[in-house]
Amino acid sequence: MANIQEVARKAGVSVATVSRVINNYSGVTERTRQKVEKVIEELNYEPSMLGRNLRTLESKLILVLIPSISNPFYTEIINGIEETAINLGYNILLCETDSNPEHEQRYFGLLKKRMADGIISMDPAVNKAKLAELAESYPIVQCSEYDEDINIPYVTINNELAAYQAVKHLVKLGHEKVALISSDERYLYARERKCGYERALNEFGITANEAFIYHTESISFEYGQHAMRKLLDLKDRPTAVFALSDILAIGALKEINSSGLLVPKDIALIGFDKISFSNMTYPALTTVAQPMFKMGAAATNMLINRIKGMRVESMVMEHELIIREST
Amino acid sequence: MANIQEVARKAGVSVATVSRVINNYSGVTERTRQKVEKVIEELNYEPSMLGRNLRTLESKLILVLIPSISNPFYTEIINGIEETAINLGYNILLCETDSNPEHEQRYFGLLKKRMADGIISMDPAVNKAKLAELAESYPIVQCSEYDEDINIPYVTINNELAAYQAVKHLVKLGHEKVALISSDERYLYARERKCGYERALNEFGITANEAFIYHTESISFEYGQHAMRKLLDLKDRPTAVFALSDILAIGALKEINSSGLLVPKDIALIGFDKISFSNMTYPALTTVAQPMFKMGAAATNMLINRIKGMRVESMVMEHELIIREST
Repeated sequence: MANIQEVARKAGVSVATVSRVINNYSGVTERTRQKVEKVIEELNYEPSMLGRNLRTLESKLILVLIPSISNPFYTEIINGIEETAINLGYNILLCETDSNPEHEQRYFGLLKKRMADGIISMDPAVNKAKLAELAESYPIVQCSEYDEDINIPYVTINNELAAYQAVKHLVKLGHEKVALISSDERYLYARERKCGYERALNEFGITANEAFIYHTESISFEYGQHAMRKLLDLKDRPTAVFALSDILAIGALKEINSSGLLVPKDIALIGFDKISFSNMTYPALTTVAQPMFKMGAAATNMLINRIKGMRVESMVMEHELIIREST
Repeated sequence: MANIQEVARKAGVSVATVSRVINNYSGVTERTRQKVEKVIEELNYEPSMLGRNLRTLESKLILVLIPSISNPFYTEIINGIEETAINLGYNILLCETDSNPEHEQRYFGLLKKRMADGIISMDPAVNKAKLAELAESYPIVQCSEYDEDINIPYVTINNELAAYQAVKHLVKLGHEKVALISSDERYLYARERKCGYERALNEFGITANEAFIYHTESISFEYGQHAMRKLLDLKDRPTAVFALSDILAIGALKEINSSGLLVPKDIALIGFDKISFSNMTYPALTTVAQPMFKMGAAATNMLINRIKGMRVESMVMEHELIIREST
C-alpha cells in the first residue's frame, strides 16, 4: 500500500501538492492535477483510508478524554502524553467529559469532522459500545482503564498483582484485620484490585471479613472519609487499610487523625497511584506507583502508530510498591 | 463594518459559500464567486480583520496557556473556562508551557495559523513583550496573573486586600510574630500580597521583621517545607505564618508536624487559593478563596467578546477569607 510521500516522489511534486489535488483545492495547474491523479491510480493509493486521510494528517491534534482534570491521577499521564506528542509534532486537546455522554459526543464529533487525528481514552465511564464503533474507523487507544472485550489497544498495569503485593506487605507487618476501601465495581481496576486483596489474604490463611470491604460510590476525598468512619465504627475494627486510590486514602487518613488515632501506630494505611499529594500528607502515604508518565508516553506512541496505519499491541507496564511512613 | 452574514444575505448564498469564496476553495461556480466578490467589495467586508476571519470562525478553539497542569490552582479556573466555552460553542486546547519560550512559541503559532481563535493566558512567566505584540492582532485575555502595563484585558482579584485581611485575621488572634512565605517577586501577585502583609502589620503598630520574610524560588511543596525549616530554625521563631499559596502552606504544615509542633496550637497557618487539597490536610487550612470558577468563566466571556470584535473591560473579582482549623 503506497503512502503520500511515494505518490509525491513519483509524480515529482511536493506532498502539499498531492494534498491539494486530493482535497480538490485550488492552486494546482490542470497538468499537475492530471499527473498526480495518474500516479494515485497507478500506486493504488487510497487517501481516505484510516490514517491516510490528508485532512487528518493536517490536524496534528490528539484528543485526550479524561473524566475530570481535577483528579491528580491524570496529571502525570497527561505530562507523558504531552511531551511525547509535542516531540512527534502533535498537539493535544484535553477533553474533560465529566462522564457526560453529551460532552463525549461533542468530542467524538471533532474526530469525525477530521479536526483531530485520534483519541487516547482514559475515561472509565465512556460509552464502550460507541467507542468500539468509532475505533473501527478512527485511531483510538485506551490508557489506564480499559475494556478487554472491545478491540481497542490499551496501556495498563497488572492491577491484581499490584494490589496483592500491597496487601501482602500489610500482612507481613503482622496485620490480619485488613480492610479494603474499594470503589464502584463496574470499573475493571476495582474488580482486579479486589481480587489481589483477596489472594493475598487467602495465601496467608486469613478469611476475608465482608465487614472490612467497603465500596464507595466515588473515589473522592469525602467518600474516603466516610468509608473510614464506617470502618472505625465497627466493634472489631481493622488495624490496616488498603484504599484503591490515594485520594480515598487521604480521606481515610484525615478521618483517622480526627478520631485521635495515629497512622501507622494504630492503623496502617496504603493508597494507590502515587499522586504528588501522597507525599505531602503527614505521615506520607505508602502507595503503589503506576508509571504514569511512561504510560502516557506509551499510549501516545501507540496512537501515533495507529494514525500512521500500523498495527499496535496492548501493553502491561511495571508498577512499584512505594513504602513510606504510613505502614 | 459588514459581517459575513450580511454578505451572505445580500449575495443570496449561504455563509459556507461565502467562506469558500474567501478561502479560494473549489465547489463554487464562477458565477456565484463573482456575485459574492462583488458584494464583498460593495460592503467593504474585510474577512482578515480581527474576529472576522472565516478560518478563525471555523476553528472554534480557544488556547489556554498555563505553566503546568500539575498545579491544582489552575484546575478550577479551567473548569470555569471549559464550561463557559462549551456553552458558547467553543472547545479549549490546554497548553502547558512549562514556562518554556519554545513551547509558548509553538502555541502562538497555532494562533497565527488561525487554528485557534484566541488565547487565555494564565502563565505569569510568559514573554510579556511577545504577548503584547500578538495582542495587537489577535484576541488575548489575561487571567489571574496579569501585567497592567501591557494593553491586554485581565480578570483578577485584589491581591493586596486579600493578603491584608488574611494577616489582619492572624494579628487579631493575638499574633505579633507573623512570618511570610513569599515567592519570586518578579510576579505581580507576590509583590501585591507582600504589600498587604506589610499594611496589616503596620496598621497594628507591628514592625515587620525581615527575618520573618522568606522568598522561595518556586511555589512547590518542597520549597514550603524548606522555608518553614528556616523559620523554625530562627532563635525567635514566628507564632503564625502566612504562605502565598496553599501548596507552600501544605509544605510548611508538614514541616511543622514533622518537628513535633502542632497547628494551630504552636503555629497558626494561612494559605492562599483554596485548592481542593487545602481541606484534606489535618488540620484543614485557613485560606483565601479566589473565585476560580467564576474567574475562568469571566475570562472566557471576555475573550469570546474580543473574538467577536467587541471592546472589553478588565475585571477585579471578589475574594473571601475561609477560616478553618489551622488558625
